[in-house]
Amino acid sequence: MVVGIIGIGLIGGSLAISLKESGLATRVIGMDASQLNLDKAVRRRLIDEDLPLEQGMDVSDVLVLATPMDAMLNLLPRLLDRIRPDQTLIDVGSTKESLLDLVKDHPRRGRFVACHPMAGTEFSGPEAAVPDLFTGKTCVIVDAQDSDPDAVDMAKRVFSSAGMTFTHLDRCAHDLHCAYVSHISHIASFALALTVLEKEKDEQRIFELASSGFGSTVRLAKSSADMWVPIFRQNRDHVLDVLDEHIEQLARFRTQLIKRDYDGFYERIQRANQIEKILK
Amino acid sequence: MVVGIIGIGLIGGSLAISLKESGLATRVIGMDASQLNLDKAVRRRLIDEDLPLEQGMDVSDVLVLATPMDAMLNLLPRLLDRIRPDQTLIDVGSTKESLLDLVKDHPRRGRFVACHPMAGTEFSGPEAAVPDLFTGKTCVIVDAQDSDPDAVDMAKRVFSSAGMTFTHLDRCAHDLHCAYVSHISHIASFALALTVLEKEKDEQRIFELASSGFGSTVRLAKSSADMWVPIFRQNRDHVLDVLDEHIEQLARFRTQLIKRDYDGFYERIQRANQIEKILK
Repeated sequence: MVVGIIGIGLIGGSLAISLKESGLATRVIGMDASQLNLDKAVRRRLIDEDLPLEQGMDVSDVLVLATPMDAMLNLLPRLLDRIRPDQTLIDVGSTKESLLDLVKDHPRRGRFVACHPMAGTEFSGPEAAVPDLFTGKTCVIVDAQDSDPDAVDMAKRVFSSAGMTFTHLDRCAHDLHCAYVSHISHIASFALALTVLEKEKDEQRIFELASSGFGSTVRLAKSSADMWVPIFRQNRDHVLDVLDEHIEQLARFRTQLIKRDYDGFYERIQRANQIEKILK
Repeated sequence: MVVGIIGIGLIGGSLAISLKESGLATRVIGMDASQLNLDKAVRRRLIDEDLPLEQGMDVSDVLVLATPMDAMLNLLPRLLDRIRPDQTLIDVGSTKESLLDLVKDHPRRGRFVACHPMAGTEFSGPEAAVPDLFTGKTCVIVDAQDSDPDAVDMAKRVFSSAGMTFTHLDRCAHDLHCAYVSHISHIASFALALTVLEKEKDEQRIFELASSGFGSTVRLAKSSADMWVPIFRQNRDHVLDVLDEHIEQLARFRTQLIKRDYDGFYERIQRANQIEKILK
């Protein structure tokens, strides 16, 4: 079958690799606002060819919308206007409320399946696409009851063939849980990078003294502003909620240091250690 | 030569592996307050034998002090009281001011070389020891002018044979830079774990939705309270200084979200991205 990928970056490109490797896609069409990205994707053999949006859409059995979130808000209604009943449209976006509110009354809403494959790296663009990005990870299917059953089946075939398992959430719960588990770690990491860049004026020292621990904590700070600002914009309220909690947790460590309450500090580190049980 | 390791955990145990593999140590003696740790270290063949502290000290050419920081404060003066002029004592502690202030007038101060190998993982104990922990990393030698030149040479032989390169700092600069680059990432990670555990009451959701990005940012939150509380206690003022900056950076993201200043948010993410240049 022919898979059309709109936005051929880290996620779109990695999915293209998986779908070709699994044999589910016989042909992968790339569509992208940037001709530079399309050229890279062709050179890296992520896609078989690139086509203009409407042309690429018409020849695809399945369409995967994998642009940044703000472009999705713009594209999704236009794609649904044009979609045929034998086609399935899947997105891979990190927030769902605004997107799904936008198309909730669209006559062809059923052809659309809102998905969030919980996978990624701190890199972006077609050069960042890698095989096996999705293997063993979870794909969240959001508000599945609003999609046609055959469209949901198709979405599951796509992500199964990339090695994913599934969970279901409604759009509010999805955005809430993603703020808690994913979006806050990006803000924490951006803030840590800014902290160190602000305090440590001697870049050579950072280079010398940064152990792998620092590198790990700050890894997400390399993530793209083009991708993340639209996510924070669309999930603003949930992100603010969890950001308040995070600042509060840091302020408590601060108070404990000021008061020299090292027993309390010890007890809270032990509580933080419990994350290990959940993360395997 | 015989190397005695006092505190046979992640760092002491990993160093023992490297020193035996490189051939620098013909025999490794383990000393530890915990007989359980010693038994594990013998079973894992990290050490050739375990001995009581004074006995093990007397038969060692080089002694490596690798306990948590609070035990170091207790042990270092006692070890210097007993050390012979043909022996070298090295520590691997994460803070240096209190430790070095404590022994600055000791008549055998010259036999001691204060070292901080910038390497580690979130795990602890002899079971966490791994080969190649130090390879390619930096070892900071602190206040080298207060150590006998032959003792410094010996310390360099030890860490060179583990694959490390060297940099020099005085004790105040060391503690300051480590607060900036290492200690704050641990607090940030502990606080992030507590944030997520507080907000996300549904542990199964964390398990399902946590991508590798979250896992990376929160990795250090698995670190041991026994190791880290003494570090925060001894480096309290510098840690408070950088923690204030970190809370301020997060508060700025918060203000930008509240004001919907997404251009400002974008600009600050791009600034955070600059950490990439420094971290290779």
